Amino acid sequence: MNQSSNGTVEDTLNTRRVAIDTYRENVAYLHRDCAIYRAEGFQALNKVAITNNGQTIYAVLNVVDDPNLVGADEVGLSEQAFTQLELDEGATVRVAQAEPPRSMEAIRRKIAGDRLEVEDFRGIIDDITASRYSKMEIAAFLVASGPGGLDREEILHLTRAMTDSGSRLDWHEPVVVDKHCIGGIPGNRTTMVVVPIVAAHGMLMPKTSSRAITSPAGTADTMEVLSEVELSPDAMHRVVRRERACLAWGGTARLAPADDILISVERPLGIDSMGQMIASILSKKLAAGSTHLVLDIPVGPTAKVRHMREAMRLRKLFEYVGDRVGIHLEVIITDGAEPVGRGIGPVLEARDVMQVLENDPDAPHDLLQKSLRLAGRIIEFDPDVRGGQGYAIARDILESGRALSKMQAIIAGQGAQELETTPGQLTEEIVADCDGTVVAIDNKRLAHAARLAGAPMDKGAGVDLLAKIGDTVRAGDPLYRIHAEFRADFHFAVAYCREDSGYTIGEPDQISRLHMEL
Amino acid sequence: MNQSSNGTVEDTLNTRRVAIDTYRENVAYLHRDCAIYRAEGFQALNKVAITNNGQTIYAVLNVVDDPNLVGADEVGLSEQAFTQLELDEGATVRVAQAEPPRSMEAIRRKIAGDRLEVEDFRGIIDDITASRYSKMEIAAFLVASGPGGLDREEILHLTRAMTDSGSRLDWHEPVVVDKHCIGGIPGNRTTMVVVPIVAAHGMLMPKTSSRAITSPAGTADTMEVLSEVELSPDAMHRVVRRERACLAWGGTARLAPADDILISVERPLGIDSMGQMIASILSKKLAAGSTHLVLDIPVGPTAKVRHMREAMRLRKLFEYVGDRVGIHLEVIITDGAEPVGRGIGPVLEARDVMQVLENDPDAPHDLLQKSLRLAGRIIEFDPDVRGGQGYAIARDILESGRALSKMQAIIAGQGAQELETTPGQLTEEIVADCDGTVVAIDNKRLAHAARLAGAPMDKGAGVDLLAKIGDTVRAGDPLYRIHAEFRADFHFAVAYCREDSGYTIGEPDQISRLHMEL
Repeated sequence: MNQSSNGTVEDTLNTRRVAIDTYRENVAYLHRDCAIYRAEGFQALNKVAITNNGQTIYAVLNVVDDPNLVGADEVGLSEQAFTQLELDEGATVRVAQAEPPRSMEAIRRKIAGDRLEVEDFRGIIDDITASRYSKMEIAAFLVASGPGGLDREEILHLTRAMTDSGSRLDWHEPVVVDKHCIGGIPGNRTTMVVVPIVAAHGMLMPKTSSRAITSPAGTADTMEVLSEVELSPDAMHRVVRRERACLAWGGTARLAPADDILISVERPLGIDSMGQMIASILSKKLAAGSTHLVLDIPVGPTAKVRHMREAMRLRKLFEYVGDRVGIHLEVIITDGAEPVGRGIGPVLEARDVMQVLENDPDAPHDLLQKSLRLAGRIIEFDPDVRGGQGYAIARDILESGRALSKMQAIIAGQGAQELETTPGQLTEEIVADCDGTVVAIDNKRLAHAARLAGAPMDKGAGVDLLAKIGDTVRAGDPLYRIHAEFRADFHFAVAYCREDSGYTIGEPDQISRLHMEL
Repeated sequence: MNQSSNGTVEDTLNTRRVAIDTYRENVAYLHRDCAIYRAEGFQALNKVAITNNGQTIYAVLNVVDDPNLVGADEVGLSEQAFTQLELDEGATVRVAQAEPPRSMEAIRRKIAGDRLEVEDFRGIIDDITASRYSKMEIAAFLVASGPGGLDREEILHLTRAMTDSGSRLDWHEPVVVDKHCIGGIPGNRTTMVVVPIVAAHGMLMPKTSSRAITSPAGTADTMEVLSEVELSPDAMHRVVRRERACLAWGGTARLAPADDILISVERPLGIDSMGQMIASILSKKLAAGSTHLVLDIPVGPTAKVRHMREAMRLRKLFEYVGDRVGIHLEVIITDGAEPVGRGIGPVLEARDVMQVLENDPDAPHDLLQKSLRLAGRIIEFDPDVRGGQGYAIARDILESGRALSKMQAIIAGQGAQELETTPGQLTEEIVADCDGTVVAIDNKRLAHAARLAGAPMDKGAGVDLLAKIGDTVRAGDPLYRIHAEFRADFHFAVAYCREDSGYTIGEPDQISRLHMEL
């Protein structure tokens, strides 16, 4: 606000670039002597609305006392804000106090114990998508709709609101398949085996995956060892048209954008809400144009879902919402007692996947079996396949080498990586401290060890399992090998694993497997 | 982390001052090329622990791409962080990833529906006091312990945990009195009348008050028109010893520090939780060494508490917790239908207070009566005063001029303001648009108007009421006068009041007064 000599008021400021990255949260920097800061009664950390050419973004206010950073007639903004407002540095913008988002009223009703309607959820999701919510307002929404906070109708409303918050793909085919695992199991790279099998069968499976956020590798990180994964929409469609499938990173498409914002608060808080998870997964799948979905719910003492009864409740909720939003959905409950395959970390997991596709006799058996089972269920979505025949068809495709050819074609289509990446050269074996049988492996501890070693940022870093549940070991036998590329990471990981290997060695009858649907 | 040639690792960085004020939230700025940022797998907006000489503070991480702000071997910190760590610029500190606060586990249990024990609340409050919580973690706690979230035992636990989180004053006297209003009524400056009356009676009333956060004036802002309010502990004790009372700002003492942090999230979220409010008020009073407390709960359609039944529930909860933490507590439910007195804003409210103390026949009657009633109840805490005699004693003290003398002595003791401040010179009267009786005044709208006019920052800004509920007006009669010091503020306030004056004019029988305890 520049007060001119005749007393009229202009509420504009010049923009200035501030090279501070605040990760998905816009920050506006105003000098303490800025007239608009004083006049509007702004307070640090409140939200302000910044408008240019009819477009508005919302930002958290930080107050600056250093004129080298921003002057009294300037507003400092991050690169991201310049992009969102399509601004050049120095352009003028209007800055005003942001009204609290209107939908907070619905959240306050939810906190007070009310049931919300679909319009309430639409208002909330629209405001979140428009960045009108601060992190703490998002946290309030997540906690208010946490365990027991949403009934199944509300989960359905939320799913619909989230699906409608972004764009939606249409593949113009009656059957577009997808698979999803609710996560928490390191090394679980079945997607990279399932996609080529299903595509070789002729079904459409345009798979997009995430990168790791808290895990040592996402499917996108692992596929990136073999090929490009950051595809333009055009490039992705070209690969899918030719190969019936792709294995790309899903991060650039604006599908269900509210979800990414919710996750950026949910993860650091460590709060898991069934309702949020169901809405998040199904809205993403619907937005991606999927019509048929196989959902993998691993159960185990150190998995995300720890008890069979919890898995069953989750399955019923997925089925209820899935049926009503019009997606064909099969839930498969799997063994989540230990990591899948041997490698944990992008290069090591890519090696496991290729061993399975190449029919290598040394290929990890659990990754092979689980992949066939999931691929088989997806193949049974094909109207021409008889119920119960999917597994055999999947096995034939794999054993005939057709899955490998398909994978090679997908890699070539996406752009093969020119340099072969190898496991990290700094290695250390963690050994058994007594004789006995491996009776438990802590998924969380092994995942954390692989992350400390440098995964997923250093592709070759991670952990390679040399013994799994049921194996007999003697004191001094190696349990797993740590791979790292940098000395500091290596030391952190080795120290962490020496403190507690994450393996429990005991008597064979201590192995408690859940009764799995197989 | 500086990696030296022989491969050993030092996890220290040089400190650099960054003049960005983030209001009660520490921020650490690391350059994207900083080795420690990369190696530790930090993520922007996560918390980091910064340690110097065994003392640790926690800060939110912002990633910087501008070497002029911080270099790769530096960590940028705000002034506040330098003070907390007792650092000189350039000193080295250790920077590490902050573990999530351990007590978040209790909050997750609370979200899942568990009852928490006193140890859980102690852990939460200790972590909040140590700044281990992010704003969103605090929001999670507030929502999880929101309406219906805490039973009365849990409120008691929370009160105890908050009381123990800071230092506690001891006045070495058996009766230390205090008063508190739960707020929401503009112009409600009874404290400045009550304190001199009670002190003139000889009781100890070392009153500390807050400044306005969302209201147009706090008691500290109003008292500051007359005297200094930011007293050192020594100066405050000197005044209290001599006058038996003070009227100081409470902001500098570290009493129940967790409360300030909780409020910094609660207010912008606009969530009000009875449990949090009770714990907040009682812990502050206990920490300030009060033994006897009169609590004012105004009830009215635009007050914080809107219904008598809500006021009654609040009263019972206050009594339950108060009795168990050992504070003598009287709850008084008062009329919160309209602002108290005439002035809204520091100078105008100070004028009302002085009119009452000076026995000016024009003094606002409601401020006078309410002050006498509250002072009377406090005086009855005196063991030598017979129940029911307090009001008459208070009235005698006021009418005799002893309250005025006491106020003058307190002002002189704290340091009288040298310059007399006057109401803002830019004025505009808002008038009635029809004939009739004033039947309602919107507390929230009038408070907001006074804020827009510049209160509390501009002491003379605010609103002066010229008609109150029950008054008969004719179209064109003035309802209130806006005072401002700056043109921009003045225009904002006038435009806002012209849009809606906040007054309802109708028939006398539309006035709905709640049945008040009197």
